[in-house]
Amino acid sequence: MMTQVVIVCFLTLTLPVMAVNSWLAEPIKGLLLDITGVLYESGEGFGTAIPGSVEAVKRLRETGIPVRFVTNETCATRAELIKKLHHHSFSVSEGDVFSPVPAVISLLKERGLVPHLLVHPAIECEFSGLVAGNPTCVVMGDADEAFSFANMNVAFRALKAMEDPKLFALGFGKYYKHKGQLQLDVGAFATALEFACDIKSEIVGKPSPLFFDAALSDIGITAKEAVMIGDDIVSDVGGAQKCGIRGVLVRTGKYTRSCENHPTVTPHFIANNLSEAVDLIIEAQSKNIHQV
Amino acid sequence: MMTQVVIVCFLTLTLPVMAVNSWLAEPIKGLLLDITGVLYESGEGFGTAIPGSVEAVKRLRETGIPVRFVTNETCATRAELIKKLHHHSFSVSEGDVFSPVPAVISLLKERGLVPHLLVHPAIECEFSGLVAGNPTCVVMGDADEAFSFANMNVAFRALKAMEDPKLFALGFGKYYKHKGQLQLDVGAFATALEFACDIKSEIVGKPSPLFFDAALSDIGITAKEAVMIGDDIVSDVGGAQKCGIRGVLVRTGKYTRSCENHPTVTPHFIANNLSEAVDLIIEAQSKNIHQV
Repeated sequence: MMTQVVIVCFLTLTLPVMAVNSWLAEPIKGLLLDITGVLYESGEGFGTAIPGSVEAVKRLRETGIPVRFVTNETCATRAELIKKLHHHSFSVSEGDVFSPVPAVISLLKERGLVPHLLVHPAIECEFSGLVAGNPTCVVMGDADEAFSFANMNVAFRALKAMEDPKLFALGFGKYYKHKGQLQLDVGAFATALEFACDIKSEIVGKPSPLFFDAALSDIGITAKEAVMIGDDIVSDVGGAQKCGIRGVLVRTGKYTRSCENHPTVTPHFIANNLSEAVDLIIEAQSKNIHQV
Repeated sequence: MMTQVVIVCFLTLTLPVMAVNSWLAEPIKGLLLDITGVLYESGEGFGTAIPGSVEAVKRLRETGIPVRFVTNETCATRAELIKKLHHHSFSVSEGDVFSPVPAVISLLKERGLVPHLLVHPAIECEFSGLVAGNPTCVVMGDADEAFSFANMNVAFRALKAMEDPKLFALGFGKYYKHKGQLQLDVGAFATALEFACDIKSEIVGKPSPLFFDAALSDIGITAKEAVMIGDDIVSDVGGAQKCGIRGVLVRTGKYTRSCENHPTVTPHFIANNLSEAVDLIIEAQSKNIHQV
């Protein structure tokens, strides 16, 4: 009886510490960071930088750990996004950002597809020259207010008119935080069209493995050498983990307490914010270097 | 070789006739009819009666075959629906109509649930006295234009705020025909909320077996003695067949040619319209009576 009590106490005291450290044991040769909800909270104008995130990115640059930004942001062009990040003094260049719009444009050109767009009006200009009379696919991003009943029906009828209907979803998030409130993301509306048309969408963006792979190969590292940090338990953490990348969840952005008991995804670590996660990574890396 | 040709010709000539007749072999003691797309096409004002449908219902009344109308219509109160049917001279009384609104109201009262409504403005009045400050469930019907981005988000946040989120869908149709065009139905938008909240909705209406059973028990017949006639291959035909009711599809309403090759549902018969199906049923019944 006494032995059992001692074992229980031992496990209780040591397991959380082991859990905290185990994800840092293997070397980290590159970081993938989500943008909205990790670097800044979206809102009116440029939104608000999350406390400590600007300095965290700066520390990563100083230590030389390669960083890429993998975002499903489709409410602004990549140039506008960079402008927003620079406004908050984030050290990010356009070449460091992986977002679904350039990826889907390459894909449309490769396959010779004509898109019907159900996207945010701010990014429609990026597709100029690709849109024509008889669409052969629907491309949907986070259209925000443009997810009206009328626009959903136009996209639905476009799919029903296609001989071989194709739906590209720029990301597949369930929801995100906007102006302090949760709101439905592209994944919810894509699911509605999938159901109505008996089709499956092709995801361009997180959690598609192709998307994570593109960022990893740009750094020149393997999945095992990388850590993904995001506020979306499914798209960021679960998506990365499916590729063999360690997934860290932050308690900022769209995070809610229920994410900590998600039925299918258990993050490698849950940090209060990007700053805390980066501090732990830099500390662990410096120890690893000294050990080597 | 000659024998093979003869067999092929024999099969070609006789199989369609066998297929036409087999669903009529067993006695039919009651009919369940869908309303929109079978009796009339929806549109501005009262819509348009489908040619032959008024007379078909009249013939059924004359022969004494019991009829109930099972509809997922949630864009009008039951009284307004009857008014519309009477405008077209359909012989239908309120007691013959099974629709989801009275069913869900009974259910809310039984379980002591407080609904947040995402329904057509025309039927909100039916829920008076049930809506209060802190909803414990979301009830969604075919909200039509009220399926706005803002309303979808309010319903989503209501579900996210519930300890035990419950979603009642008044039917689960994919789409229907309105003013000559296909438009998304409640099932598509319910699927979006299911995905965003990781929940399954409880369907009140077709294709829920409880809904078909209520109409059968009102007539006092078993599933095997009934035929359901509808324009929705999944909710009407597939739903009825899952309960053991014969399912007949009509080529009116939301019917499109692709319904004839549906991946999971094969109707017992496909009629050009209600009139044709009713003629076949009355003819077969009169033969059955003479044989007895």
